[in-house]
Amino acid sequence: MQPVTGFSKLSKSQKIDWLVSHHLDDSTTARETLVQYWNEDEKLQDLHDGFSENTVTNYLFPFGLAPNFLIDGELVTIPMAIEESSVVAAACKAAKFWLDRGGFKTQIKGTLKSGQVHLMYYGLGSEMDAFYAFAKAELLESLEQINASMKKRGGGIQELSLIDKTKSLEGYYQLHATFETRDAMGANFINTTLEQLATTLRKKASEFQGFSSDVPEVIMSILSNYVPDCVVNVSVSCKIEEIGTINGVTGAAFARKFVRAVDIATVEPYRAVTHNKGIMNGIDAVVIATGNDFRAVEAGVHAFASRDGQYRSLTRARIENDNFVFEADFPLALGTVGGLTSLHPLSKLAIQILGNPSAEHLMKVTAVAGLAQNFAALHSLVTTGIQAGHMKMHLVNMLEQIGATDEEKKVLRQEYTDKTPSFSSLRESLNLLRK
Amino acid sequence: MQPVTGFSKLSKSQKIDWLVSHHLDDSTTARETLVQYWNEDEKLQDLHDGFSENTVTNYLFPFGLAPNFLIDGELVTIPMAIEESSVVAAACKAAKFWLDRGGFKTQIKGTLKSGQVHLMYYGLGSEMDAFYAFAKAELLESLEQINASMKKRGGGIQELSLIDKTKSLEGYYQLHATFETRDAMGANFINTTLEQLATTLRKKASEFQGFSSDVPEVIMSILSNYVPDCVVNVSVSCKIEEIGTINGVTGAAFARKFVRAVDIATVEPYRAVTHNKGIMNGIDAVVIATGNDFRAVEAGVHAFASRDGQYRSLTRARIENDNFVFEADFPLALGTVGGLTSLHPLSKLAIQILGNPSAEHLMKVTAVAGLAQNFAALHSLVTTGIQAGHMKMHLVNMLEQIGATDEEKKVLRQEYTDKTPSFSSLRESLNLLRK
Repeated sequence: MQPVTGFSKLSKSQKIDWLVSHHLDDSTTARETLVQYWNEDEKLQDLHDGFSENTVTNYLFPFGLAPNFLIDGELVTIPMAIEESSVVAAACKAAKFWLDRGGFKTQIKGTLKSGQVHLMYYGLGSEMDAFYAFAKAELLESLEQINASMKKRGGGIQELSLIDKTKSLEGYYQLHATFETRDAMGANFINTTLEQLATTLRKKASEFQGFSSDVPEVIMSILSNYVPDCVVNVSVSCKIEEIGTINGVTGAAFARKFVRAVDIATVEPYRAVTHNKGIMNGIDAVVIATGNDFRAVEAGVHAFASRDGQYRSLTRARIENDNFVFEADFPLALGTVGGLTSLHPLSKLAIQILGNPSAEHLMKVTAVAGLAQNFAALHSLVTTGIQAGHMKMHLVNMLEQIGATDEEKKVLRQEYTDKTPSFSSLRESLNLLRK
Repeated sequence: MQPVTGFSKLSKSQKIDWLVSHHLDDSTTARETLVQYWNEDEKLQDLHDGFSENTVTNYLFPFGLAPNFLIDGELVTIPMAIEESSVVAAACKAAKFWLDRGGFKTQIKGTLKSGQVHLMYYGLGSEMDAFYAFAKAELLESLEQINASMKKRGGGIQELSLIDKTKSLEGYYQLHATFETRDAMGANFINTTLEQLATTLRKKASEFQGFSSDVPEVIMSILSNYVPDCVVNVSVSCKIEEIGTINGVTGAAFARKFVRAVDIATVEPYRAVTHNKGIMNGIDAVVIATGNDFRAVEAGVHAFASRDGQYRSLTRARIENDNFVFEADFPLALGTVGGLTSLHPLSKLAIQILGNPSAEHLMKVTAVAGLAQNFAALHSLVTTGIQAGHMKMHLVNMLEQIGATDEEKKVLRQEYTDKTPSFSSLRESLNLLRK
């Protein structure tokens, strides 16, 4: 095979031609698979093709609904885009459980984001301090135009400081800037601001007389997805006696085991990773549905989970005066305007379903989806185990995969009501059935 | 508004009726938006609806192609499902750069996964040791049926041990099991195995005479998405003189700044998070396209990034005897059979595009996509800055959003060839244009 040149300039059909002839043995089925996912509305399809590059078709995520979330006294239906089975069902289960027990409570603890101009200077630190004093006013002035529209909305750059990082790395300094971006995620605004700061810094450095070494060199200017000051708290609580019996476990035993399970995820990284993964099932589903960037959220959340030097559970649980309390702080930088949020028709609709919320409100709803998911997972784990429910949901998919007919599916679903299915046991049952 | 009961039992149309009347002011446009994303092939749509619960429509991710990846001497076209602009373009750029410079080299460092039965026992540790010696043979024996099919494929449970975790948490022990799952991601297999271990453990505990305290209590049994022993190494390297001039920067200066940028991401968490987020843009795009679980991969990768007590860059760069070397170890637990991989028609096709790879091969390709993405990001960051390229790609979307006509778009794209656009500047330009 030879490298292909000018691939990006080919039409979508030409790209598919090349793909099918070079990687798919000229299979017409393969071509049909790609084409069958195109939307019949050409203009709509064009819009989607434009979201990325070299697009040949659409990858479908189920878009579902989790109703009955009582959040700060209001009923919310959460839109979720997620490809994993059981996630939406788990959300609904948790919503229902807390609906009768006071619902979810949320509180915004901060909405600040940050970005840095990373630079190197190998002379004296005092020279950098003098330079920063010399340059600061003009650095800020140079941002006026870029900040104008964000300022009107009550946001913009909040603070600018020079940080000496030479103890971590020889010669390393930061211009560290904090931002309020209101209802926008703000990535482009922050990056544009930082690049302007870098431009002005270079100019001022060429004017400054006090450097004994080569002038500072800007390595890069970029926002941070680590957002420990853009945080929402979410909690649920109820009297232990209100819990009732769950899958044969008393409320008191349930609460005790639940707290123990969270304790374990707090001290043991092998468990913490999967514990937090489950939380992200809920968070990402809302992040994706609303057109936000789940990689940004994932990175920020997991780094936050390791902030004290060990990777730990993001949630906390305790029993306090006969109350069961379960809560979390999640760092979530989200937007409800701009980016895909305003361009992807389904994201626009997801935002509408949530009542056109502010970014702060979306942080709250997303945090609820995360806590709910963790509640549902632990609910299963400390009672029946995760597989019982999961496999029941999964059974349908497994039966599909081993080629069971609708009639066979019915019989096998019945057979596996109380048994844990595995592929080999299912195949065995299917063979028996077919004899 | 009242809570809704029996929502999951409503038909898809009834769910939409409820949604539109309760959350969308009976808007026919909203209903049309949901319906226009249904696939015309009803059977196919049913399949997709079944992947999750309460599904009302499909959320579309662009599915694109990044050709020209030279990986261990072979040309690969990488399928990517990603909603962020520039990611596929960045992959193509990195592929092209390394195509002429030896390509990407990969090496599997391990493929073991693990899972734990988490339990509490408040008596003596020596009693637990004695119990484990008493129970171990039967614990393993009880797995035979569950392990049978995986064993045939050369996998199955590898090791089982009792770990005393009482120093982290009073009374806390683990049955820690390691698994080889071959080409399957193996989540269901591992969880089913662990739940069987828990069942056998409970049975053996009731038979054991040597407990001075209450018998051990199983809190939960679950796989771990922390996979530090399921790791692939990926690297690129070339002579510095082969780099050539990049965006006006000499190869030597480029290499030096590049290494500095990675050094910064190694020592500074604010930078490391975004640095690794960019890597995950590439990794997740392949993970999603191939029907794997991106939350599992995200959690495992980010915890790995914090394993030494500080959250750091996943990639490493150095200059070594006039060679520029750039590499990474990524923990990636992926499957090429089972789960969505075998059910989602486009994931099946993505697997076909990659030549029906083993899980190990998919680990390699995915790791390449991650390293490539980081290379492209740093390539921009240390030369022109991230915004120049990104905003060019983004300009199209911004123009769409402010309602520019095709004719206006053409003029404004021209105007912004050398300028960084912001929404306010674009709106100003558009208004001028319309006067």
